[in-house]
Amino acid sequence: MNQSFDTFDTADTAACEAIISSYNTYGGIMDDCPWPSKSMIESLLMAIRNLLFPGYFDPNPIRDIRTTTLETLATIRSLLHTGLTDTRLAKTSGQAHAVVDQFFQYIPTLRSILKTDQMATFDGCPAANHPDEVIVAYPGFWAILVYRVAHFLYQQGVPFIPRVMTEIAHSDTGIDIHPQATIGGHCFIDHGTGIVIGQTARIGQHVSLYQGVTIGALRIPRRGNNANEKRHPTIEDSVTIYARTTILGGDTVIGAQSIIGGNLWITASVPAKSRLVNKAIQ
Amino acid sequence: MNQSFDTFDTADTAACEAIISSYNTYGGIMDDCPWPSKSMIESLLMAIRNLLFPGYFDPNPIRDIRTTTLETLATIRSLLHTGLTDTRLAKTSGQAHAVVDQFFQYIPTLRSILKTDQMATFDGCPAANHPDEVIVAYPGFWAILVYRVAHFLYQQGVPFIPRVMTEIAHSDTGIDIHPQATIGGHCFIDHGTGIVIGQTARIGQHVSLYQGVTIGALRIPRRGNNANEKRHPTIEDSVTIYARTTILGGDTVIGAQSIIGGNLWITASVPAKSRLVNKAIQ
Amino acid sequence: MNQSFDTFDTADTAACEAIISSYNTYGGIMDDCPWPSKSMIESLLMAIRNLLFPGYFDPNPIRDIRTTTLETLATIRSLLHTGLTDTRLAKTSGQAHAVVDQFFQYIPTLRSILKTDQMATFDGCPAANHPDEVIVAYPGFWAILVYRVAHFLYQQGVPFIPRVMTEIAHSDTGIDIHPQATIGGHCFIDHGTGIVIGQTARIGQHVSLYQGVTIGALRIPRRGNNANEKRHPTIEDSVTIYARTTILGGDTVIGAQSIIGGNLWITASVPAKSRLVNKAIQ
Repeated sequence: MNQSFDTFDTADTAACEAIISSYNTYGGIMDDCPWPSKSMIESLLMAIRNLLFPGYFDPNPIRDIRTTTLETLATIRSLLHTGLTDTRLAKTSGQAHAVVDQFFQYIPTLRSILKTDQMATFDGCPAANHPDEVIVAYPGFWAILVYRVAHFLYQQGVPFIPRVMTEIAHSDTGIDIHPQATIGGHCFIDHGTGIVIGQTARIGQHVSLYQGVTIGALRIPRRGNNANEKRHPTIEDSVTIYARTTILGGDTVIGAQSIIGGNLWITASVPAKSRLVNKAIQ
Repeated sequence: MNQSFDTFDTADTAACEAIISSYNTYGGIMDDCPWPSKSMIESLLMAIRNLLFPGYFDPNPIRDIRTTTLETLATIRSLLHTGLTDTRLAKTSGQAHAVVDQFFQYIPTLRSILKTDQMATFDGCPAANHPDEVIVAYPGFWAILVYRVAHFLYQQGVPFIPRVMTEIAHSDTGIDIHPQATIGGHCFIDHGTGIVIGQTARIGQHVSLYQGVTIGALRIPRRGNNANEKRHPTIEDSVTIYARTTILGGDTVIGAQSIIGGNLWITASVPAKSRLVNKAIQ
Repeated sequence: MNQSFDTFDTADTAACEAIISSYNTYGGIMDDCPWPSKSMIESLLMAIRNLLFPGYFDPNPIRDIRTTTLETLATIRSLLHTGLTDTRLAKTSGQAHAVVDQFFQYIPTLRSILKTDQMATFDGCPAANHPDEVIVAYPGFWAILVYRVAHFLYQQGVPFIPRVMTEIAHSDTGIDIHPQATIGGHCFIDHGTGIVIGQTARIGQHVSLYQGVTIGALRIPRRGNNANEKRHPTIEDSVTIYARTTILGGDTVIGAQSIIGGNLWITASVPAKSRLVNKAIQ
């Protein structure tokens, strides 16, 4: 017993020095972290979910909606304000409060858009028995909710936090939507696992996406000379894209009201009302 | 500091009124939630897992199996009874107890079926060193376990809870199995991520499914006129379906003992003992 | 109320006996678990992450790097030592300490390799604004980090723990890498969901893999006669494989500097500098 503790001490002290030396050589150490922790961003998302859909997720019953709402707003303000000042985006506390104020003012609009996503999902999925099931049990709805929150904060110039939010949703659902992508209302994402929507994608209203669809880049541009170039497709209104179809390229446009059969690989535009069907065994 | 708190109060009070107004306009508020929380359903699933495989997941060693089992049964009864009365399925406490009793009586049968799934997985995956590894570390086994629990409760008419159970497994594993689907014994699901098995699918015994396989609907029926129609395929006994093949349609039947090569898109029936191989680069 | 409790007691006692009988018939009960719990392995992984990238994940600021490092090493030693003696790999406490010592000595080398993976990811993904984003928000980097830890322990002969580690990463990211696979430095995995890398795969340096790629087995060998045979492909240096391509077979070699277009199904070798492009709609 004593022998193993001696081994322990000696070995750990030597290992410690070698590891500290590797921090100096390779970096990857952060003395003063410039962003909020992932667990803090998760808490923020849970509070935002309670604000958007009170009573659906919080085990405590609502007794007085005004008190509940003010308490939830206070939680969100505290977390988001701390997150913003931690990331040093906001030079002053007042700037951070201004971002929070803008977010709070956006909530009714956000709720109206999410209502369209919820109903598009309910209408699109015969397995749903009630619209409330969409709110509680549909991964596509959770992914789009998180995306819409992250997209708004991204547009306000908030760094880092939106990207971690969408990555939390990606881990929960297998749906990876970059916060900079643009997605219209009435969005229906079914099953979802494996969906990727890239940073400069533009997606219209009333679009349906099934599991494994990629809206991605055709070639990966070298960093620096064209990082902000549009490198992901445009999907116009009322398009349906079936499972595991891959659509690539910044100039690629899928015309409105098209139906794109699954397992396809598309790198050029198609006109409105196209019907592309996989050459199936049929 | 005082200034920012003044901003805080005024802004939040105004935001609060606008948000409450949006609850009235768009709904999505639930004063008196008719279902158990997701975290409660997760606790229920963990307790069921401890009942099915005692000692594998619970960090506490089993001292007396009779005491341990009775305690686990009491936990499950309490959670499931509360869940059932919360969902208002059960008009009386006695009705809820009857559902729990039926579930408890099903446990030995469920354990015998899961044994066939466990051995099919062990036999199918050369990377598994011991059948116990399947219980602890195979996502396909966890997904099929949760499906079999959810399917039984679904058959007893339990609303909502089974669907949330399979969605928890979907989030954990990327495998989305609707609780109404029918799946025979000796089921082997490998890797799993991206698998979708739809509501009216029928899958026989000794079926093997690899990552990304979809057993889905060819067209999405309009709600109301044919929601209960069979819209997902039938997979007969002893079929193997390799990675990312999509099989669609309620009339599509994959005949017994067929082997279906990966990345295929199939919308019509194939006879027994079919060998469909992807036209690969070979 | 009394009536339902009577029902409760009688039903549970009867169910208990039937369930205990099923433990005797079908097994699946473990009185004395020979491996550490999944939650313990998760704690171990979190401590290893804090050691590899101090300050990035731990909410507590680093005050004195020497103290912080020694504390983290002590946590890892305690968890890994317990895990090793629990799995009965280590016949003596000293043997377990020796494995921990080897792991600690490997940390600087591991950090140097992870630096190459981090920079390959940053260079490969124009959406990343800073290399630190890769450490905190890229699922591919988390999957490769966990794989590299698991692979080292696997090489030291540690049973069970490495496989559970990679399965934890699989659940988090949808990326399933067997700990026995060999993967060179500068590895870039983007989006990741649905990637499978099999047990005997060999992957060179500077390889890029996109979502849904499988490096898998062509046929599943029967257990016993060829379980250690190489049944997964070799991917040579500087190969890029786009989304959802499936490459199968132990004799299949993708030659160096090849670019493999997405959604392909490949079961034979291709020479160096190959350009395989999906016959897209273009």
